[in-house]
Amino acid sequence: MVPIVSFVGKSGSGKTTLLEKVVAELTGRGYKVGTIKHDVHGFEIDCEGKDSWRHKRAGAATVVLSGPGKIAVIKDVDEEWDPARLGFSFIDGVDIIITEGYKKAGHPKIEVIRKAKSTKPICRKDKNLIAITSDIKFKCRDIPCIDINDAKGIANLIEKRFLQKQVHGEIADLIINGKQITLKPFIQGMLVETIKGMLKPLKGCSNPRDIEIRMKT
Amino acid sequence: MVPIVSFVGKSGSGKTTLLEKVVAELTGRGYKVGTIKHDVHGFEIDCEGKDSWRHKRAGAATVVLSGPGKIAVIKDVDEEWDPARLGFSFIDGVDIIITEGYKKAGHPKIEVIRKAKSTKPICRKDKNLIAITSDIKFKCRDIPCIDINDAKGIANLIEKRFLQKQVHGEIADLIINGKQITLKPFIQGMLVETIKGMLKPLKGCSNPRDIEIRMKT
Repeated sequence: MVPIVSFVGKSGSGKTTLLEKVVAELTGRGYKVGTIKHDVHGFEIDCEGKDSWRHKRAGAATVVLSGPGKIAVIKDVDEEWDPARLGFSFIDGVDIIITEGYKKAGHPKIEVIRKAKSTKPICRKDKNLIAITSDIKFKCRDIPCIDINDAKGIANLIEKRFLQKQVHGEIADLIINGKQITLKPFIQGMLVETIKGMLKPLKGCSNPRDIEIRMKT
Repeated sequence: MVPIVSFVGKSGSGKTTLLEKVVAELTGRGYKVGTIKHDVHGFEIDCEGKDSWRHKRAGAATVVLSGPGKIAVIKDVDEEWDPARLGFSFIDGVDIIITEGYKKAGHPKIEVIRKAKSTKPICRKDKNLIAITSDIKFKCRDIPCIDINDAKGIANLIEKRFLQKQVHGEIADLIINGKQITLKPFIQGMLVETIKGMLKPLKGCSNPRDIEIRMKT
């Protein structure tokens, strides 16, 4: 499973600006990054009159646009998907996923505090808080407080915590009824070997590197 | 596997307008529809200055936006994905996928011909052509020619061909190295039962309805 880290903080604290700098820094170091923006108030992405807008307005539940080098998807959902499900379903081939928002989700998080907006951490008691980044000098015994303009320092922390101990080799991600299931390495290995063994005799399956299966039972 | 049908035809022949009407008609009949627009010349969907645009510009390979009732994804790809892969990866829970474009793909297709644009079918020799829809009255012995304004007639054809003989019960879709593999019902059943049997003893897996697995080997 790709590691997920969340930038959380009050509106206007500078999460997007910081995320931009950290994504650019990590990309510059050769990592592939996916991002998820939690837009609690809703968003508009499609423009009136465009073909994709017309498809959607006609009643399509999901609209996909596919062009040279780029894909876009606009999809209706009944309930909100958590970052793990969004990452599993839509983001592949990346080393890390950084989310903007999702302070209530159970992923490691970095809180952004800008003194013009607030002076109190909102996630101080959250066991998933791994750092504070701020223009205030907080003294925390257990987690680092990094300057809000020090994107390199934040990238260093992310690299050290999430990007240098990735296990290479066989991995299996599993979603059941829309919920991500954490598998122990032994179970992952058993699943991978059993499925590979079943598929190998089939046409077109002799050299599987990436296998995706979706089942309805 | 969800059936895919493609509306093909020259630029300006009215594919989008027809697709809108047919999607509305099928949606009105209670079907869930997904659409894929093939944009050979590329598209712009994100607006400068928006957070998702800023994430993408900073270097993120994939950006996901998640809001109430809606998800959007913008993703870089090295090579173009075919409709089967796009459908498998991004569209779930629908009864049918209608594509605008993809005349070279091997899916059943309906050619749209408007006499102001052209008078000759471009897919006449394609064995996947299942109908022509036009404001010209073509006489084809083997396929129907439906009036270009008769969205109901086209929806009837799609319903009859693709929506009334869906097999209910266990199904399994498989993608290996990015390519969809067609599985016989016997193999699908074996795969589903084996994987269900392996997963059932695990925590959180006791009542699987939708199972998704992604493996790298």
